[in-house]
Amino acid sequence: MTFDNLFNAQLDQLKEEGNYRIFAELERQCGKFPRAANHTDGEAQDVTVWCSNDYLGMGHHPAVIDAMVKTVEACGTGAGGTRNISGTNIHHLALEAELADLHAKEAALLFTSGYVSNWAALSTLGSRLPNAVILSDSENHASMIEGIRHSRADKVIWKHNDPEDLDRKLAALPSNATKIVAFESVYSMDGDICPMAEIVEVAEKHGAMTYLDEVHAVGLYGPRGGGISEREGLADRITLIEGTLGKAYGVVGGYITGSAALCDFIRSFASGFIFTTALPPAVAAAAKVSVAHLKTSGMERARQRQQVAKLRARLDAHGIPHLENDSHIIPVMIKDPVKCRQIADILMADYGIYVQPINYPTVPKGTERLRFTPGPLHTDADIEHLVGALATLWKQCALSRAVA
Amino acid sequence: MTFDNLFNAQLDQLKEEGNYRIFAELERQCGKFPRAANHTDGEAQDVTVWCSNDYLGMGHHPAVIDAMVKTVEACGTGAGGTRNISGTNIHHLALEAELADLHAKEAALLFTSGYVSNWAALSTLGSRLPNAVILSDSENHASMIEGIRHSRADKVIWKHNDPEDLDRKLAALPSNATKIVAFESVYSMDGDICPMAEIVEVAEKHGAMTYLDEVHAVGLYGPRGGGISEREGLADRITLIEGTLGKAYGVVGGYITGSAALCDFIRSFASGFIFTTALPPAVAAAAKVSVAHLKTSGMERARQRQQVAKLRARLDAHGIPHLENDSHIIPVMIKDPVKCRQIADILMADYGIYVQPINYPTVPKGTERLRFTPGPLHTDADIEHLVGALATLWKQCALSRAVA
Repeated sequence: MTFDNLFNAQLDQLKEEGNYRIFAELERQCGKFPRAANHTDGEAQDVTVWCSNDYLGMGHHPAVIDAMVKTVEACGTGAGGTRNISGTNIHHLALEAELADLHAKEAALLFTSGYVSNWAALSTLGSRLPNAVILSDSENHASMIEGIRHSRADKVIWKHNDPEDLDRKLAALPSNATKIVAFESVYSMDGDICPMAEIVEVAEKHGAMTYLDEVHAVGLYGPRGGGISEREGLADRITLIEGTLGKAYGVVGGYITGSAALCDFIRSFASGFIFTTALPPAVAAAAKVSVAHLKTSGMERARQRQQVAKLRARLDAHGIPHLENDSHIIPVMIKDPVKCRQIADILMADYGIYVQPINYPTVPKGTERLRFTPGPLHTDADIEHLVGALATLWKQCALSRAVA
Repeated sequence: MTFDNLFNAQLDQLKEEGNYRIFAELERQCGKFPRAANHTDGEAQDVTVWCSNDYLGMGHHPAVIDAMVKTVEACGTGAGGTRNISGTNIHHLALEAELADLHAKEAALLFTSGYVSNWAALSTLGSRLPNAVILSDSENHASMIEGIRHSRADKVIWKHNDPEDLDRKLAALPSNATKIVAFESVYSMDGDICPMAEIVEVAEKHGAMTYLDEVHAVGLYGPRGGGISEREGLADRITLIEGTLGKAYGVVGGYITGSAALCDFIRSFASGFIFTTALPPAVAAAAKVSVAHLKTSGMERARQRQQVAKLRARLDAHGIPHLENDSHIIPVMIKDPVKCRQIADILMADYGIYVQPINYPTVPKGTERLRFTPGPLHTDADIEHLVGALATLWKQCALSRAVA
C-alpha cells in the first residue's frame, strides 16, 4: 500500500522506545479462572492471569453465564438497532432500573462501554450546558479527557486528589459558569482512592456539579457494591455516577446514573448514545444478574480483600517494592518499558504467570509497571508461586529493593 | 436536583418541536422474528418489526445463537480487560482473520461498536498523519463527523455522492497534504448508494486515501457479503473499509480492515481502541459464524431482495410515495415530526406494526420519515397487512399521494 510508509514511520518509533504493544492471545476457560490458555506463541500454555479486570471472577459465575445463555436462546444474539430504532429491549430497561437502585438514583442510562459513557456524557454536558467549565482531576482516564476535549468547553485541570487546589480553581471562575467537577474514585493505575467527602464539600460550596467515575470501584466497595460513594455515604450528593459492567461485573458495557432529567438529557442529546446499536439483550440480562448478585453477596469482596492483603504482605516480606494504596490494585514499579516487557516475558515463559507490562500511553513514560489484581479465586499457592518468581527475578535482575 | 432546570429547559424544547423520543420497549423472541412483544404500555402486544437493522434475521440464526451459547459456556460472559491487558481472546483473533478475508485485506481490527470504529479510526488518522485533510461526504454518519471533528484535522465537505465536486475540492488542496476521502456505500436514511468507481478514481488521481463506511452493506451486497466494494470489484482500491457486526450480521461490534500497517497503526494509537474493555469472546464467536455463513449462503440476501421489491411494488400500486433507491431501505417521507409520530403510534396500536418515526437529529428537521427494512423473514401476508394499513391511513390523514 502506498500509505504504509506513513504508518510504519510512527510504529517504528514506538518500537524504538520499547512501547510497541504485543497482545497476549488468551483462551478464557470457564470454571478454571484465573487460569487461562495462552496461545500467543502457537502452542497452548496454561497460565495464571494476574492482571484481569474481571476482579471478582463474575465473568465465570454460573448465574451470570446462565442468564446470558438463556437470554441468547430467548432473544437472539443482538439488539437489532439503536435504542431509538427497534433496539430497546426489556432487558436494557431492567438493567437500567437495577443500576439506578444500586446508586440510589432516579435513573440510569446504558452505553456500549464505559469509555463511551464517559466520552458521550462529558462531551454532551460540556457542549450543551451554558458557560460550562469542566474541572478535571489531572489523573482522569483517557475517556474523560477525550470527552472533555470533544465538548470544547473550558477546561481547568486541578492537582490530583487535591481538594484545596480544586477549591482555589473553582473560586477563580466567573459566577455565571456552569461548573462540572470530574474525577474518579479509584484510579486504575496507581490504585489510590480520592478524598471524596472533601471534594464533594468543595464542589457544593461553589455550586458545582459532580461527575464521578467509579469504574474500578463498582461491585467492589460499599455494602451493595455501589462503589466508594456508597461506602462513604456520599452517593446522594454526587450529581452523576458513571460505572462499568465490564470489570467487577464481568460482562461489558458502561452506564451513568443520576436524576431522571439528567439521564433523559444525555439520552436525548448524546451522539455516542443515539447513533449506535444497543448492547445485546443477553449482555444486559447477564449484567443485571451480576449486579444483583453483588448487592447481596459480600463473600467475593471479602475474599478478594483477603488475597490482596496477603499478596501485599508477601511482597513486603520479600522486599519487593509496590505502590501503597487502599484499593485492590497492586502496582510494582519498573520504570522502564524494555525491562518491564522483559520481566513479563520471563514470568510468562518460565513461570506460567501472566501479567501484562503496562506502558505508555496507559501510564506516563518512565512509570512503567506490572499491575497485579488479586481476586477471590487466586489461591494462597498462586500467591506463593508469584512472589517466589518475582523474588528470583529481582535477585537476577538486581533491581532496586525496598528497604524493609 | 439543583441542576434539573438546566436539563429540563432543553428537553422541553425538544418536546415542543415534537422531537422528544420515546423508545419502544420490545422483547425479541427467538424463532418468531420479525415478530416481537411490545411492552411499551405495560401489557405485552404482539407486533411485527418493520424497522430492524438485523436486516437478514441473523441475530436469530440457530448457528449464530449456538456459537454464542457455546462460547459463553466455554469462556464466560466477558473479556476481562482491554485488548492489551488480558482482554485479547482467540475468538477476537479468529474474527479479525475472518473479516480481513471478507474484504480481501491484510488485516482487520475489532472495536466495541461501528460508531467507535469510525470515531476512533478517523480521529487517529486525522490527528496523527502529517498535514491531514479529511474530505467528507456531506451526508456522512454522525460517528464519522464526530471522529473528524475530534481529530481537529482540516475538513472539507463535498457534495453528497458528487465525484466532480470531490475532484474540484481535492485539486484545490496543497500538494503536501495527506488527503483522506471519507464516504459511505449505502446511506442509511435515504438508502442511496454512492458512485464508488468514480469516487475511487478521483481519489486515486489526487493520491488520496479512501475511507469507506460499509455498515449498511456488509452481509447484504457482494457475492460473499463483502459490501458494495466487493460487488463492484473495488475493495482492493479502497485504503480502509469499515463495517459493523450489529446490523446484517445480527450481533454487535464494529471493525476496520486494511493493510497490516494501517490496522497496526490504529491499534497502537487510537484512544477509543486502547482504553476500553474488549468485546466478550462469545460476541466475537457469534459474529464470526454469522460472517462465515453469509460468505457462502446467498439465500438470505436473495429472499430479502425479493421482499424489498414486493413492498416497493405494493406501495406503488397503492400510490404511497417512497424514496427511490437501489438498496434495501424504503423511506416513506412524512416531513413533520408530529405527524410522523402519530402515524407510527396508530400503526402500532391498531395494526401491530412497529416502525419507529425517524426524526431529528437522525435526519434533518422537515425530512421526518418512516423507514421500512423488509427482510427475508417478512411474509407476503406481512407486506399486504402493512400496505393495507398504510393505504387506510393515507386516506384518513389525507396525506399527499404520489401521482401514478
